Amino acid sequence: MISLGELASQLDVELVGEASCNITAVATLQTAGPGQISFLANSRYRRYLTSTEASAVILRTEDRDACLGNALVSTNPYLTYARVATLLNPVARLAGSIHPSVVIEPTAEIDPDAAIAANCYIAADVSIGAGVQIGPGCVIGKGVCIAADSRLAANVSVADGVEIGQRVLIHPGVVIGSDGFGFAPDQGQWFKVPQLGSVIIGDDVEIGANTTIDRGALENTVIEEGVKLDNQLQIAHNVRIGAHTAIAGATAIAGSTTIGKRCQIGGAVGIVGHLTIVDDVHITAMSLVTGNITQSGLYSSGTPLAGNREWRKNAARFGQLDGMARRLRALEKQLKEK
Amino acid sequence: MISLGELASQLDVELVGEASCNITAVATLQTAGPGQISFLANSRYRRYLTSTEASAVILRTEDRDACLGNALVSTNPYLTYARVATLLNPVARLAGSIHPSVVIEPTAEIDPDAAIAANCYIAADVSIGAGVQIGPGCVIGKGVCIAADSRLAANVSVADGVEIGQRVLIHPGVVIGSDGFGFAPDQGQWFKVPQLGSVIIGDDVEIGANTTIDRGALENTVIEEGVKLDNQLQIAHNVRIGAHTAIAGATAIAGSTTIGKRCQIGGAVGIVGHLTIVDDVHITAMSLVTGNITQSGLYSSGTPLAGNREWRKNAARFGQLDGMARRLRALEKQLKEK
Amino acid sequence: MISLGELASQLDVELVGEASCNITAVATLQTAGPGQISFLANSRYRRYLTSTEASAVILRTEDRDACLGNALVSTNPYLTYARVATLLNPVARLAGSIHPSVVIEPTAEIDPDAAIAANCYIAADVSIGAGVQIGPGCVIGKGVCIAADSRLAANVSVADGVEIGQRVLIHPGVVIGSDGFGFAPDQGQWFKVPQLGSVIIGDDVEIGANTTIDRGALENTVIEEGVKLDNQLQIAHNVRIGAHTAIAGATAIAGSTTIGKRCQIGGAVGIVGHLTIVDDVHITAMSLVTGNITQSGLYSSGTPLAGNREWRKNAARFGQLDGMARRLRALEKQLKEK
Repeated sequence: MISLGELASQLDVELVGEASCNITAVATLQTAGPGQISFLANSRYRRYLTSTEASAVILRTEDRDACLGNALVSTNPYLTYARVATLLNPVARLAGSIHPSVVIEPTAEIDPDAAIAANCYIAADVSIGAGVQIGPGCVIGKGVCIAADSRLAANVSVADGVEIGQRVLIHPGVVIGSDGFGFAPDQGQWFKVPQLGSVIIGDDVEIGANTTIDRGALENTVIEEGVKLDNQLQIAHNVRIGAHTAIAGATAIAGSTTIGKRCQIGGAVGIVGHLTIVDDVHITAMSLVTGNITQSGLYSSGTPLAGNREWRKNAARFGQLDGMARRLRALEKQLKEK
Repeated sequence: MISLGELASQLDVELVGEASCNITAVATLQTAGPGQISFLANSRYRRYLTSTEASAVILRTEDRDACLGNALVSTNPYLTYARVATLLNPVARLAGSIHPSVVIEPTAEIDPDAAIAANCYIAADVSIGAGVQIGPGCVIGKGVCIAADSRLAANVSVADGVEIGQRVLIHPGVVIGSDGFGFAPDQGQWFKVPQLGSVIIGDDVEIGANTTIDRGALENTVIEEGVKLDNQLQIAHNVRIGAHTAIAGATAIAGSTTIGKRCQIGGAVGIVGHLTIVDDVHITAMSLVTGNITQSGLYSSGTPLAGNREWRKNAARFGQLDGMARRLRALEKQLKEK
Repeated sequence: MISLGELASQLDVELVGEASCNITAVATLQTAGPGQISFLANSRYRRYLTSTEASAVILRTEDRDACLGNALVSTNPYLTYARVATLLNPVARLAGSIHPSVVIEPTAEIDPDAAIAANCYIAADVSIGAGVQIGPGCVIGKGVCIAADSRLAANVSVADGVEIGQRVLIHPGVVIGSDGFGFAPDQGQWFKVPQLGSVIIGDDVEIGANTTIDRGALENTVIEEGVKLDNQLQIAHNVRIGAHTAIAGATAIAGSTTIGKRCQIGGAVGIVGHLTIVDDVHITAMSLVTGNITQSGLYSSGTPLAGNREWRKNAARFGQLDGMARRLRALEKQLKEK
């Protein structure tokens, strides 16, 4: 519980209304009740301001007059909401320090302020920093370093030698440091190329459930600081992702591709290998990237959804496109000559 | 082992032939031998009826005359086959009740008729119903409820507060209740938005291997009763999937999208966020859905596969399509004016 | 450490320079230092030969004169590099044999030369061959056979009855033998079809992190010898993948499809069910395959990436393609008649 006045002062936003009003939780405008604070980030939903039972609303200056009750006025209501929600919902710390069921090799160094839950395995030469929390069933490979205050949820697998920065958050089922997909052709068969690089995860990175990040072939796969990766991503060997880039679920990035800083990549995008994508590139969902992107901007590929019968007719014509273009050119020429 | 007569009476289908014939297993028409029962769901394969060594065949009335031996006549042979196969192959129960290696917090409530296999972790305030079976290596978070007769296979991770209905079947590697992908932009960086909702899984849901279902941001992610989810799906925060919808593998659904009842969604489909899709919508494999779907029916997107050389020529023309359309219009106008 | 002379003789390649030069590690041409060996597989990078500080370089005959120092001359430098890297980086064996935390059912048969790491579960009737290494947190289901020298990394789940060949390498989070996605429609609901087949993994297969391979419905899902599967793949029930085929990350293959030998399938490809693809087919990234492929060759689908504004204009015309084709034909006819 925190008072509106204290919230306003801690978050440095303007308070309109009762400073003494106590806030216990966040909620949406439609569902909030007494003691709850909500937010209006998009003026389109302003109509909910009159009916909401929230004790306070976080909103922009321009929506302030439409609000009948208490308000926190912010230039970025969604960010202010996120800060309030964080204050009201501190992350639960794992109970105890190291569960007796954890198997730890003798040369691992674990900060006394770290917590490790049941059934984990911590290999030799691992280094785990202060405030690190490792959930149940995680496997931490030989020589892995996990810096202060990082959190691993359940059943995470970190292979040998991976380096994880501070305040990194890793969701269940994530695999970091598995072998890259490297094989040399050998008379119709494949000879495995040892994957000798590692993975470096910068500070403040978040990695979604069941995402996989392969170790580099010779040099490292690198996820720079502040990168946010959603669930089910595939990041191949030697990929580098620039700081503060966000990538939505089920996107796959092939080997040795470099992605710039502050990019936003939609879900289910495919990016082939050995490309360079500059900073501040946005890519819409399910696009396929097969060449370098040298200018920031918004990029897309694909075809629009349609009823299947209509789609079949048009899709069949896709295979005739080059012919159609040539016939169109011929008609133009013919008409010009007449 | 069960006799044909007993099968016919239990499944309420017509028996043609020897009621006393004993059936021990199911098999395909091509591979079945004595004691095995097969099925013909598609008249296209009727030719196999003459050569099959199956002791009995499940088929439709219209295929009955083509069958030389014993038959069960059903209006839905595939369903009848599934029922027979279920009778002949009851699900094995886990041995014992709670394996001594399981770590259980004291406030967890576990029905004496539940079984929990080796190396699981059961957090505080968990409630596990009668007949529930949890495979090895599962992690069940704080306050999770799992209702009667649900089964979790190996290495499943269920985060805090998730509610799982009755007779739910969850395959290995599934993650339920991981944080949704929510971040507020903050001066070129991302500030994490706490994900405070949960996930509600209805009765009779099945969830395929390594599928991920994120918890809601403020309200819940909801999978209604009877939904069937294949492997490697990504279900983002606040998605709602209507009852009895089936979704094939590797499909990704972005945040806050609502999908209707009895939909059938192909594999590797991408559905962007904040959409509404009505009941009884079918979507073909690898389509991208970027707008609401307001009428039931079959939908598609994409382009057909072609030889790479031919494809390159046509794909290059895709980028000229708008120009081609304008030139076509100009030609039509010019010709009309002549 | 190994001398250049010994490398040349072991790998049967020509040595140019000092046989006594000792090699301790592999590295790229740009980063290599004394004691390290590098390789030049692509003449495009020949310029690095003059500046590299590598003690030796693996290269083709045609690049030999451009190399100032020691060289190993090979017809396939990448393959020779892979062999050298393998010699210099032998796979670490798991310490000890069976960790005391492992839970093993009494009827499992484990070769005394196998190693099983912490927190694994080995079910009844499992058979584990000589030299097999199983990483921490793996779950091996009833009756599973794992042949000699196979390695499973962390948190792998293998369901009942799966057969794994020799020298198979399985990365973390992989699931093998989960139920195929089979349901019979039953009055608007789904009735589960028991998945009674298994999965057979051939010798020398590699399976990437978090890939899923479902068991067959009645017969088996089969991955033939030498197949290389990248991360995050979805292989549905009754798929058969031919020997030495390689499939890149995030590709999904629907049920009962048969893929030939020595195919190369790009990442994020979708292949629908019940298809046959012949040997030696190559498919580019993110293509959708909806029909049989009866001739070897390179195949593609999809549309090229473009700036979003331009893409929107062209994508809108995709829905008019059939109409445009008809109008083009009409113009041609009209002009011919004039």
